[in-house]
Amino acid sequence: MTFTSPHDRLLDRLGEVAVRIGLNVAPGQQVVITAPLDAVPLVRRITEHAYRAGASLVTPLFSDDAMTLARFHYAPDAAFDVAAGWLHEGMARAYREGAARMAITGANPVLLSQEDPDRVARANKATSLAGRPAMELITSFATNWNIVACATPAWAAQVFPDDAPDRALARLWDAIFLASRVTVDDPVAAWAEHNAALHRRADWLNARRFAGLHFTGPGTDLTVGLADGHLWAGGSEPAQNGIVCNPNIPTEEVFTTPHALRVDGHVRATKPLFHQGTLIDGIAVRFEGGRIVQAQATQGLAVLERILATDDGARRLGEVALVPHSSPISQSGVLFRNTLFDENASSHIALGQAYTKCMLDTDGQTPEQLAARGANSSFIHIDWMIGSAEIDVTAITRDGGREPLMKHGEWVNTP
Amino acid sequence: MTFTSPHDRLLDRLGEVAVRIGLNVAPGQQVVITAPLDAVPLVRRITEHAYRAGASLVTPLFSDDAMTLARFHYAPDAAFDVAAGWLHEGMARAYREGAARMAITGANPVLLSQEDPDRVARANKATSLAGRPAMELITSFATNWNIVACATPAWAAQVFPDDAPDRALARLWDAIFLASRVTVDDPVAAWAEHNAALHRRADWLNARRFAGLHFTGPGTDLTVGLADGHLWAGGSEPAQNGIVCNPNIPTEEVFTTPHALRVDGHVRATKPLFHQGTLIDGIAVRFEGGRIVQAQATQGLAVLERILATDDGARRLGEVALVPHSSPISQSGVLFRNTLFDENASSHIALGQAYTKCMLDTDGQTPEQLAARGANSSFIHIDWMIGSAEIDVTAITRDGGREPLMKHGEWVNTP
Ligand SMILES: [Zn+2]
Ligand SMILES: [Zn+2]
Ligand SMILES: [Zn+2]
Ligand SMILES: [Zn+2]
Repeated sequence: MTFTSPHDRLLDRLGEVAVRIGLNVAPGQQVVITAPLDAVPLVRRITEHAYRAGASLVTPLFSDDAMTLARFHYAPDAAFDVAAGWLHEGMARAYREGAARMAITGANPVLLSQEDPDRVARANKATSLAGRPAMELITSFATNWNIVACATPAWAAQVFPDDAPDRALARLWDAIFLASRVTVDDPVAAWAEHNAALHRRADWLNARRFAGLHFTGPGTDLTVGLADGHLWAGGSEPAQNGIVCNPNIPTEEVFTTPHALRVDGHVRATKPLFHQGTLIDGIAVRFEGGRIVQAQATQGLAVLERILATDDGARRLGEVALVPHSSPISQSGVLFRNTLFDENASSHIALGQAYTKCMLDTDGQTPEQLAARGANSSFIHIDWMIGSAEIDVTAITRDGGREPLMKHGEWVNTP
Repeated sequence: MTFTSPHDRLLDRLGEVAVRIGLNVAPGQQVVITAPLDAVPLVRRITEHAYRAGASLVTPLFSDDAMTLARFHYAPDAAFDVAAGWLHEGMARAYREGAARMAITGANPVLLSQEDPDRVARANKATSLAGRPAMELITSFATNWNIVACATPAWAAQVFPDDAPDRALARLWDAIFLASRVTVDDPVAAWAEHNAALHRRADWLNARRFAGLHFTGPGTDLTVGLADGHLWAGGSEPAQNGIVCNPNIPTEEVFTTPHALRVDGHVRATKPLFHQGTLIDGIAVRFEGGRIVQAQATQGLAVLERILATDDGARRLGEVALVPHSSPISQSGVLFRNTLFDENASSHIALGQAYTKCMLDTDGQTPEQLAARGANSSFIHIDWMIGSAEIDVTAITRDGGREPLMKHGEWVNTP
């Protein structure tokens, strides 16, 4: 392979990292790729690397924004309760039969912002119902999977609204390449090192078994108790088929399960939150006994309140994650308006559902037993950023002692 | 909708004809579209018209020549026995559940001509095995379906090898638009008329119940007996779901089942035949008792002989079709190297499998009973052209009389 431009070389490296680090494709595996049409050049790079890694068949499922919009503009109203069950069931079957799953993110985040919200909600509901069997295989990590990003004109226009389209697209690509750690000489080796560092950090935190974390800084004084028998995770992990993969590219976080009843104090978001095309900015909330008892926002408060009203667990935390301010995403200063990137730019907390995989000894435990240990449950899981160069994190030890963990957004030690 | 160019207007009309005439989409139907990536603009026009016609969801399944080639260049050898069974099963389920099927032809006809023929054959076999349940639903006409063409650079280069790529592509589009009858003022009305004319022709032939056809002209003196209880078909037909559709756009033929044992004389092909990327030219064969007893070709004879050796039925006829020389495809003078077009440019015969739908009273009949009536069976069905302005066709009546049917390639009467 020869490359006609630096962009092509970086695109190829992103494809190689997605295949070798993200999926870690096993010889003979099929690969299913979901992608927007704008991602064709990246999909082709991924495909070549997948075959070089021994994939038997790579099948792309492209989506087209123009076709999606045509539906909202011309289809009869009853159409919006319909989904492609046959295709989602087919994908579920592919994963059950051992296929790896590659998802390419980058679709227009505000594509449907001008469409009837009721129809958007109905279409989303129909799709997520139809997609449940496949999605459960992904969330239960039945097979190796990866999500990687492709810059698209529509997304770039959201991220760099003041730039001309070509310039915005080029800047977004630069930011994706940097964040995805493919701008170094040997990206695959760099990712191996990065994974090792994340594993060392998670191992060290698991060995220390802290009782809680205390976040302090401008507008923030928040104590987050950790769940009983919580487990820190980060970097690559084995799927149930035994293949060690990196579900997210990029990934910078180590994360665990907070105790749903032991969060107290106030916290101010350090970045805006983008939720289904809406911006929620200036979030500041107060917790008592794990529950948000007061919530403010300078923009999008109504949407925030709707999120918090989803169910009982929506006002409590399901995840706490630590990300150093020196991470490449954070250093880029780019607000991607895409959770895959923004949550990896900063320490964050998530409202809603906890990850079972971030709890020790869960085999045979009932949901009630997990809840008693502090694991929250909810239909939502929404990450929002609370870290910055001005935030310190102090660990609270099991005997009530205090140990500095992060200062000015950076780890105090290197395990 | 406003159009920025005459091309865009014609493309939109082709989309409209494919939806309203080809599929005749029913309100609430899902539509599955298989297409090469080059067909995105046409797929979008089809999608809009499908939603306007009441489709609930249009799902595209794009294939990419570059990804297909990457497999042949980089995948391990064992890969070539693998197919996306999960996807083919999903499509079969879609059709069983009522979805319409739109196939867009135009992929590079010689894409794999430089690849290992053994691997190509294995990959084709794996795909056709996996695709059998879906294909059986299509061939048994369980749902409404349509195949329509999209000009692609690779196909255009084959058809107009002496033109610059842009010019070749534009010429192929012109030829497709003309052949698909969308260059007139009201293509949908024109298609309704065209279908009515084909129906009148088939009805008239069915009322006459001729015993055989006699083709005469340079190098040709061929008598084709018709099957007992044969049925002429042509133009739109009802699928098993009750929807009247046009499976092929374009279509110019009326066709029926010859008697597999009653074909005698010699015939010379009037156009070359393209079979899986190989050109077979100058075909001349002699039939005795329905069987090809001598076959010549000035080019590709080895491939022709391999075709004839496929099975017992490969040397006998399964279809005879009449197309006037004045049909738009024939008038264009373009050799499309694509059966959808070339078989509609000229009267033709097909080696191999007969269509059950071209036989009367088949309900409850065994394959043996159908064979006794003259219906041929084979794994192949390969059309080749024997009509031209120099060919006359005479009908042989049941009492042995003779009636002129076509003179100089044109119908003698207008029913
Ligand atoms: Zn996280
Ligand atoms: Zn999260
Ligand atoms: Zn035919
Ligand atoms: Zn045929």
